Amino acid sequence: MVRVAFQGERGAFSEEAAIVHFGADVSPIPCRSFSEVFTAVSTGGADFGVVPIENSLTGSVYSNYDLLMEHALHIVGETEVRIRHCLLCLPGVGLEKVRRVLSHPQALSQCERSLRALLPWAELVPMYDTAGSAKVLKEKGLKDAAAVAGRRAAEIYGLVVVKEGIEDSAENYTRFLILSPKPACPEGAAKTSVVFAVENVPGALYRCLEPFATRGIDLANIESRPLRGRRWEYIFYLDFVGNLQEKPVREALEELRKRTEFLRVLGCYPHKVGKGP
Amino acid sequence: MVRVAFQGERGAFSEEAAIVHFGADVSPIPCRSFSEVFTAVSTGGADFGVVPIENSLTGSVYSNYDLLMEHALHIVGETEVRIRHCLLCLPGVGLEKVRRVLSHPQALSQCERSLRALLPWAELVPMYDTAGSAKVLKEKGLKDAAAVAGRRAAEIYGLVVVKEGIEDSAENYTRFLILSPKPACPEGAAKTSVVFAVENVPGALYRCLEPFATRGIDLANIESRPLRGRRWEYIFYLDFVGNLQEKPVREALEELRKRTEFLRVLGCYPHKVGKGP
Repeated sequence: MVRVAFQGERGAFSEEAAIVHFGADVSPIPCRSFSEVFTAVSTGGADFGVVPIENSLTGSVYSNYDLLMEHALHIVGETEVRIRHCLLCLPGVGLEKVRRVLSHPQALSQCERSLRALLPWAELVPMYDTAGSAKVLKEKGLKDAAAVAGRRAAEIYGLVVVKEGIEDSAENYTRFLILSPKPACPEGAAKTSVVFAVENVPGALYRCLEPFATRGIDLANIESRPLRGRRWEYIFYLDFVGNLQEKPVREALEELRKRTEFLRVLGCYPHKVGKGP
Repeated sequence: MVRVAFQGERGAFSEEAAIVHFGADVSPIPCRSFSEVFTAVSTGGADFGVVPIENSLTGSVYSNYDLLMEHALHIVGETEVRIRHCLLCLPGVGLEKVRRVLSHPQALSQCERSLRALLPWAELVPMYDTAGSAKVLKEKGLKDAAAVAGRRAAEIYGLVVVKEGIEDSAENYTRFLILSPKPACPEGAAKTSVVFAVENVPGALYRCLEPFATRGIDLANIESRPLRGRRWEYIFYLDFVGNLQEKPVREALEELRKRTEFLRVLGCYPHKVGKGP
C-alpha cells in the first residue's frame, strides 16, 4: 500500500487522480489544505502527495506553484483526470425537492448553465470542497439539497447520482502532479519542471528561453508568479519536454543557470499529459 | 459623472479602485459577475469598467484574462489598491460575541493567521463577496457574526470597524484595469497589452519575445492561458513598457504579428503600476 496525501474529503477528484496513477492499492490520506499535503509528504506522514496544478478551463492552481517553491519536494509524475461533475442527492430525493445546490464555487460555476436549466429555482451554496459537500449532504441528512461532486463521492457517501456529466464544457480536465521527498530518474520520454528568477531588465526572459530554443527543446508550459514581498516582480515556472539524462537538456540547464539569479529543478518525470485530446 | 461598472456590492475593493482612478465623481454600477461588467461596458450600460487583473500575493485573475479575449473592449488605464481587510460588526457587537466570520474565501485565507489569533473559536463561512458579506451582516442583523471587508463597506452599511488591517501580509495589492469601448492614445510613458497565439513548436515563444529584446523593450508581465476547447494549448498575454506612438514599439508589434497565428492589441495606457514599492 502506498500512502497518498491529497486535499479534500474522501471521493475528491484528487483521490481519483491518485488511483489513476498508483492503481487501487492506495491508502488515501485526506488533508484539509494543499499546504497540509505538502507537509504530510515532507514529514513522512505520506509516501506521496497528489495536487492539482492546472485545469484546462480555469488555468493554473496558483497556490500549488507557491507551495512547490516553499517546500523541497520533487515532482515525480503527472496524471490527468477528466472532471465529470454529477448532481448527487440522498436516496429518494428527486429534482423537484431540491431547493439548494452545495459545492465548491468553481464546480458551481463550471455547471452554471446546466444547473440553471435543471433547477432554475435552486439557490447555489458555496462550500470549501466538492466531495465535502456530498459528505455534508449525507451527514446532515439534507432532503431539500443536492451536491455537485464526482461519481466516487456518491459511492463513498451512499448518495444517488441524479444526473451525470452536468459540466457546461466537456473539455474539463485537470492535470495533477505527484510529489515525493525523493527525485525520480525516469527512462525514456520525460518532462522536466524548473523554477527560476531573473533580473528585471529588457530581454531577460528572452535570454532564458534561448538555451531551449537553440536546442529544439519544446516548452510545455510557462507560468509567472509574483515574488512574495517584492511587489510586481516575478519568478517563472517552466515545464519542457526532455529528460535530465539527455546531454542537450543538461547543457540547456547549465546555460540557464548562468542567466538566472536563482534556478531549481523541481523534477523530471515520465511525460504523460500532452497536447490535444 | 462617469458611470463605472464593477463586480461586487457597493463598498467592494473594485469600487475603491474606480474612485482612486476617476475621483469622487463616479456613478457606481455594481454587477454580479465580471462577465456582467464587460457586458455593461460593451452595451453602453456603463462608460467604463474596472476589473482586478492581478494580486501581489495570489497572482492573476484568470477569468478576466479570458473575458478580455471574449469581448472587444480596450484597456485604457490601470490602477493599484492596497488591500486592507477589516473585521466589521454591527454596532454594539464585540469580539467575544462573534461565532462566525463571513467573507470571500480568498479574503478569509489572506487573514487566516490573524483570525485564528483573534477568534480561535469562530467558524469561517465562505461567501461570494467581501462587501457582500458586510451587506448580509447588516441586512440580516447578525449579532453573532463578523465580516471581513474593506473600510468603505463599513461606512456604506453602517458597521463598526472592530479591527483594521487584519491581512497576514502587508504586501497585499491588487492591480485593476480600466476598460472602455474606445481605445486610449496616451502621451508619454505608457504600457501596452497584447494577446497572441503561436504554433506549438520548439522556440516559438522565444521568437515572439525577440522583437522586444532586440529593441530593449521591457516586459512587465507574461501570462499563459489555456485555449478553450484545445486542451493543453495556450495563448499568451503580454504587457510591455512602451507607447504605441513610438516607432520601435510599432516595429516590434509588426515583427510579432509575422511570428504569431493571431495577435490583438488590448490597449495602450498610462504606465502607473510598476516595480515597487
